[in-house]
Amino acid sequence: MSLKLTILGFHSATPRLNALPTSQVLEVKNQLFLIDCGEGTQMQLRKHHISFGKINHVFISHLHGDHFFGLIGLISSFGLLSRTKSLHIHGPKGIKEVIELQIRISQSHLSFPLIFNELENTESELIWEDKDIEVRTIPLNHRIYTNGFLFIEKPGLLNLDMESILKEPEMERCDYYNLKKGKNFIKKDKSEIPNHQLTLPPKKTARYAFCSDTSYYPQIIPLLKDVDLLYHEATFTKEHEALAYLTKHTFAEQAGKIAKKAKVKQLILGHFSSRYANYYEHLKEAKQVFENTILAEEGLTIEIN
Amino acid sequence: MSLKLTILGFHSATPRLNALPTSQVLEVKNQLFLIDCGEGTQMQLRKHHISFGKINHVFISHLHGDHFFGLIGLISSFGLLSRTKSLHIHGPKGIKEVIELQIRISQSHLSFPLIFNELENTESELIWEDKDIEVRTIPLNHRIYTNGFLFIEKPGLLNLDMESILKEPEMERCDYYNLKKGKNFIKKDKSEIPNHQLTLPPKKTARYAFCSDTSYYPQIIPLLKDVDLLYHEATFTKEHEALAYLTKHTFAEQAGKIAKKAKVKQLILGHFSSRYANYYEHLKEAKQVFENTILAEEGLTIEIN
Repeated sequence: MSLKLTILGFHSATPRLNALPTSQVLEVKNQLFLIDCGEGTQMQLRKHHISFGKINHVFISHLHGDHFFGLIGLISSFGLLSRTKSLHIHGPKGIKEVIELQIRISQSHLSFPLIFNELENTESELIWEDKDIEVRTIPLNHRIYTNGFLFIEKPGLLNLDMESILKEPEMERCDYYNLKKGKNFIKKDKSEIPNHQLTLPPKKTARYAFCSDTSYYPQIIPLLKDVDLLYHEATFTKEHEALAYLTKHTFAEQAGKIAKKAKVKQLILGHFSSRYANYYEHLKEAKQVFENTILAEEGLTIEIN
Repeated sequence: MSLKLTILGFHSATPRLNALPTSQVLEVKNQLFLIDCGEGTQMQLRKHHISFGKINHVFISHLHGDHFFGLIGLISSFGLLSRTKSLHIHGPKGIKEVIELQIRISQSHLSFPLIFNELENTESELIWEDKDIEVRTIPLNHRIYTNGFLFIEKPGLLNLDMESILKEPEMERCDYYNLKKGKNFIKKDKSEIPNHQLTLPPKKTARYAFCSDTSYYPQIIPLLKDVDLLYHEATFTKEHEALAYLTKHTFAEQAGKIAKKAKVKQLILGHFSSRYANYYEHLKEAKQVFENTILAEEGLTIEIN
């Protein structure tokens, strides 16, 4: 198992052609987690052939328009497409009121339950888990209450230690699944061989952290430990340092510092200001601090193993 | 002077790639009137190189999402672009609450005044006029309170009747402007020649009517008299007549009937359901009743003289 991230939009503030506001999709087994939902997200989902039906959870970082103005349209389209499965919306307190007002005002009746998980905690908390994944908030420091999200894949089945297993003459192939699930092996004489003598730890699980929007905020570093991929905003370059402080955003070098200090495996930069014609300087600046950095691109897909 | 219409989006319900929800722009002299504002309208404005700064009025027909979900994003972008001029929003009662809530929740402070003209009258009324144009509602019959809009260019200056003018030896070129504005000509002996003896009526003014969404509703015909261009929804073809009745929409033949009975000059069909791969049947059906019919297309521009 692994996580698969697809970038749908990665720009800040005013949407432009080929510069769509934040949204991305994280695939976990056979379900899709939508992260932020700027205007036009539903068109981007179609453009990149991403199945609407597999989205059961939407995570909204904060209530600036470029991160959630596409949500009501997506919900409305789910209704028009006769969805019946519940949709969970995790986002800052207030999101329920704004979505419900728009549904009420259009005299629409959704064909599916909308379940809100309104967030107001300023400390990291577990906000969702199922058998495959857990999702925790990463409290950020922006002009408005904002969370990043940490997606932690749950450990899969144990691996078989074939060297030990083959030494047990009573062991048959049909016993393997019980071992993988953590059970001890029971011999015909009722004696048990403890599971740990026959198995190896499961494959290391993947972790993805999404951090947008925030000023440089080293307090998040402990939460980012062991993260395979970190998406961190880099709205500005160092040239516009003053603007970054003023607007509570990050410049690329600072994103690199966070990645380096947290010892993440890879950094992906996004949420670029529309003042830049390209992002070579962002990339150069972050790479000087943290080499394994890439730029977000529309449609970019990354397997996180 | 004339009106110039540009179609930005003309599809119904769920937006798809190349099938964007309703929005169009009407150019009147040097200002732009935005009519409906589905999700993605601001991107469409950019795509078609339409100046944000010339939009001072937005007319929203009704509060189904495919006609207004793009409005908050557009308003938000106006703010980010440091607009200072007032923006007038004409739309059904409730629109103020939904827009203001979204501004409040994002803790945004607009740099310009937002002026709401909330509509609830079920009879046609004058909702805006300036020196160039007047705008009246066209009450429609949909599942929710809905208005079409009638744009009536105001008469320009009078034309000079050069044959009569040249018979007046005292007349000079500098008197022409006063005549065009309707003043009488005063001779040296203080006697007056009435204006109407020296001028001809101004050029006929243009009229545009926008009617989406509605069931077949002949009550609107008197309002459409003398209209040069009628945009009328044709969500369905006759094959899906039952669906048209059920959802309070129109099929193409009915749109043709409205155009014919109102004796408009040209009909443009739009608001097509996504069930159709193309709209040849819509066109054929309407043309059988009213020949001068065309289909809406993204980016289509029509000069209305």
